[in-house]
Amino acid sequence: MTLSRYLPILTWGRAYDRSAFGGDLIAALIVTVMLIPQSLAYALLAGLPPEAGLYASIAPIILYAFFGTSGALAVGPVAVVSLMTAAALGKIAEQGTMGYGVAALTLAGLSGVILLVMGVFRVGFLANFLSHPVISGFITASGIIIAASQLKHILGIDAQGHDLLELGLSLAEHLTETNPVTAVIGVFAVGFLFWVRKGLGPLLRRLGLGAGLADILVKTGPVMVVAGTTYAVWALSLTDRGVDVVGAVPRSLPPLTLPSVSPDLIGQLLLPALLISVIGFVESISVAQTLAAKTRQRIDPDQELIGLGAANVGAAFTGGFPVTGGFSRSVVNFDAGARTPAAGAFTAVGLAITALALTPLIFFLPKATLAATIIVAVLSLVDLSVLKRSWFYSKADFAAVLTTILATLALGVEVGVSAGVGLSILLHLYRSSKPHIAEVGQIPGTEHFRNVLRHDVITDPTVLTLRVDESLYFANARFLEDRIQNRVAGDPNIRHVILQCSAINEIDMSALESLEAINERLREMDVKLHLSEVKGPVMDRLEKQAFLHELTGEIFLSQYDAVRKTRLSHGGVGSGPPR
Amino acid sequence: MTLSRYLPILTWGRAYDRSAFGGDLIAALIVTVMLIPQSLAYALLAGLPPEAGLYASIAPIILYAFFGTSGALAVGPVAVVSLMTAAALGKIAEQGTMGYGVAALTLAGLSGVILLVMGVFRVGFLANFLSHPVISGFITASGIIIAASQLKHILGIDAQGHDLLELGLSLAEHLTETNPVTAVIGVFAVGFLFWVRKGLGPLLRRLGLGAGLADILVKTGPVMVVAGTTYAVWALSLTDRGVDVVGAVPRSLPPLTLPSVSPDLIGQLLLPALLISVIGFVESISVAQTLAAKTRQRIDPDQELIGLGAANVGAAFTGGFPVTGGFSRSVVNFDAGARTPAAGAFTAVGLAITALALTPLIFFLPKATLAATIIVAVLSLVDLSVLKRSWFYSKADFAAVLTTILATLALGVEVGVSAGVGLSILLHLYRSSKPHIAEVGQIPGTEHFRNVLRHDVITDPTVLTLRVDESLYFANARFLEDRIQNRVAGDPNIRHVILQCSAINEIDMSALESLEAINERLREMDVKLHLSEVKGPVMDRLEKQAFLHELTGEIFLSQYDAVRKTRLSHGGVGSGPPR
Repeated sequence: MTLSRYLPILTWGRAYDRSAFGGDLIAALIVTVMLIPQSLAYALLAGLPPEAGLYASIAPIILYAFFGTSGALAVGPVAVVSLMTAAALGKIAEQGTMGYGVAALTLAGLSGVILLVMGVFRVGFLANFLSHPVISGFITASGIIIAASQLKHILGIDAQGHDLLELGLSLAEHLTETNPVTAVIGVFAVGFLFWVRKGLGPLLRRLGLGAGLADILVKTGPVMVVAGTTYAVWALSLTDRGVDVVGAVPRSLPPLTLPSVSPDLIGQLLLPALLISVIGFVESISVAQTLAAKTRQRIDPDQELIGLGAANVGAAFTGGFPVTGGFSRSVVNFDAGARTPAAGAFTAVGLAITALALTPLIFFLPKATLAATIIVAVLSLVDLSVLKRSWFYSKADFAAVLTTILATLALGVEVGVSAGVGLSILLHLYRSSKPHIAEVGQIPGTEHFRNVLRHDVITDPTVLTLRVDESLYFANARFLEDRIQNRVAGDPNIRHVILQCSAINEIDMSALESLEAINERLREMDVKLHLSEVKGPVMDRLEKQAFLHELTGEIFLSQYDAVRKTRLSHGGVGSGPPR
Repeated sequence: MTLSRYLPILTWGRAYDRSAFGGDLIAALIVTVMLIPQSLAYALLAGLPPEAGLYASIAPIILYAFFGTSGALAVGPVAVVSLMTAAALGKIAEQGTMGYGVAALTLAGLSGVILLVMGVFRVGFLANFLSHPVISGFITASGIIIAASQLKHILGIDAQGHDLLELGLSLAEHLTETNPVTAVIGVFAVGFLFWVRKGLGPLLRRLGLGAGLADILVKTGPVMVVAGTTYAVWALSLTDRGVDVVGAVPRSLPPLTLPSVSPDLIGQLLLPALLISVIGFVESISVAQTLAAKTRQRIDPDQELIGLGAANVGAAFTGGFPVTGGFSRSVVNFDAGARTPAAGAFTAVGLAITALALTPLIFFLPKATLAATIIVAVLSLVDLSVLKRSWFYSKADFAAVLTTILATLALGVEVGVSAGVGLSILLHLYRSSKPHIAEVGQIPGTEHFRNVLRHDVITDPTVLTLRVDESLYFANARFLEDRIQNRVAGDPNIRHVILQCSAINEIDMSALESLEAINERLREMDVKLHLSEVKGPVMDRLEKQAFLHELTGEIFLSQYDAVRKTRLSHGGVGSGPPR
């Protein structure tokens, strides 16, 4: 049982049959065709030789098939993680050097170990601190940086930089060196791919193709443009005109490689590896959950961490770089019929054949074409509407999105995502440190109590009832102290304070001590403190505490009881005007 | 109106009368006598010449009288802040040098500016992130360090260090150099002061004195021991036997001094100044609130920040060091009849006369005696019982206390308090990231719904009702996604999921997007999502969102309605067995 928890393949493998095999095989064929240009392109984005992209898609996919729980997730290099890889490695070594490649392996290895540790210790919840607005903002900003970083390939010039400013300045400096033939290929490829996305699907459907087949043809757009431009470069000898091509790629299965264990290098890569792990995991789990829902499958987030961790460790030992579950390829995989992780394993076989036999075919593939496929893919990730949506929903979320976008664009991916996470935690703490506290009164003829500011309610000038709409903990305990003290000190009629605790899910020790202080201070003012509607788990904890003995008032099951009995206790049944 | 908000003296000063004057004057006399040895001792603890303690109690008190809101708070040097001052300055300059004194002024100035800024921008809530357990742990550990740091004066030896380990090693090294006469004075003074605390009060009451008078005599214990040992040193010429005394103290009003504006020094002192400000403020506001409650006075925390800020700026310009409201002296002040900040101003006059005229009298005051008064004062702050209390109340609070105590003892005050604050925030986030989610059913014959695990309730196998006992925000949104998806994927009978939102005080944008994802995934599984008992402010926000249109189910005012209508909707009235 434990073994099959850590090796989900033992569970789904036992039920594997011919029908699942058929679906998985067809899906694998389609995904392989889609992955070839994608792997090459993302290797380029990460600053690595093209074959690294193929290698990063073979062993990791197979390892995920053993350890992962999603039947449709397609693991491999993805845009945002490749950008983060380039940003992390750029600080350590020059692109094209041995050191750069070893650092990429080490980054994948570290990221794998971090994911495995998180999975084994079941601390995947840490990834939750990346809020949705921060992720949206981060992905949008990353998409813009990635697209900008590919312009140099489109124009055939040199340019460096890991944030928008650096990139922009560098591009401007070299703009005059633009290679016209490369630029024609690049602009054509971008235009063609956009047309495939927007125009080809409707056209094919008008021509009478089924929607499913039309969709699959649209998805092969990158393959078409890769084949077309490669042929053009070869046929017209455009390399003589300065068009940069992929060139000789070794015909080989993934090599056995070793990441570095230098403490210096590991120290420098630890934070980037952590960020890459968390961002990769969050992206991956969200795709996996979405697809699993369509077939009522279960996804175990902690086991997903182990699956992705194993995949990254695999990448580290087979010449790859950090990988995760990709959105578009997983959707294609699922739509094409993949139902088990075996589809991934078949894809790996397809890519292995490619690496072994087909690499001579991509000798003349222009880098501008790969850049075009990246630009078109990432621009679909750019979604500035999140700014508008968050502005109208909550200013705190808006602040988090805006900070993340601006910090990522201006200061790079690591600062950007860290700033976003830090700010959203601070804003959350700020909000919960000033909880909504309503003064409530009775709705005439009912046992319901509502906010005196929103409803016509009956109140008693000698009884103050406050409902705190938040758990009480250290950050807001003193706020409640101040609020009660100032309210009671300003109104000499008050003889009873009732805290309606219906929305209080927890009282920590700071809050308990604040309640003790409130009780003591109210006693000094000759006012009794009562509690009403205390929840079971909260009461369980309070029961062992001295506070309950020192409490000047009582604990009532319902707010109605509380008001009725406190009125009786001082004789008056005064019903003040609604305030 | 605005002016009197920032200058509370304009409010209470207008109502000032002869009766208030009488109370304030008597209180000021008593507090002056108490403050003389205390100020000298805390200056010693901070590593400054004794007169700095007097100066730090004059201008600051007067400034607080103008800007503060508490009638009883006595401002001046206090033990914990003096220790933090010594720890901060120890890294920058040698005790006794000009640089040390200037750094002390700069620290007070910075701390004053920080407090003023916090007050003007009304961000005093930031201080709330110091939880009660962290403060208790910090004060306890500081008390132990302070007591240990004074042992060198008791024994008449040299020893250095800002944490327990450094101090212990240094003391052990120099132990053989103990001056026997100094040790006799020191041990006698400590013993006498403990006896005064424990034994003198009961004795005086047995002798027929009133409790009030007996208490005041007990409080003069330090003055008695100061007078007695000073006389002994003078009469027996004990300075010839190596007893270290306070020596010549200039007869002078507080001098005009200037803090440094060197960016380097300010950079080094910024974090300590921030910690000193926050800890000083928290201590002070809690004393002020406690005393204000006794007379139904109001305390404005943001104005208190301004009062304490002005006091520290005053200390910076008049030869002092960081100050705050002291606990014991404020209680004495209040008990002796102080009702307005004028009592503080009169105390300042008393101390000014002391500084101007009485300093020759303390020439022969042994440092061992001052150390004894510090030890006895701070040991009353040491309260290890907080460990036991927090252990039984909540393991998270226990972890925060223990970490704070150990980190403070082993790594010093700044690391200690930062570790405590960091850990309590992390633990809070952890707890709220895994909220309590109860599956609920109907209690037979009522409209109440309770946890299926705690009560015998009616449930319908086609309807799953979950009550989330926490606001939904980014840290717990995905937890809810996982929980619902796994529960529904594992039970094919479920056709309706109802989220009972009675404990949800807020839904942030991440949580909204999670709800959208849940709705979409449940739609894929052919299950409807309903919400019940959504609170007003939460509904206000949701109303503008597309989510409500996309919701597959309905929004019900009560859980009872929700269950009744979902049952009707699918015809069945199946009432499953209680689970």
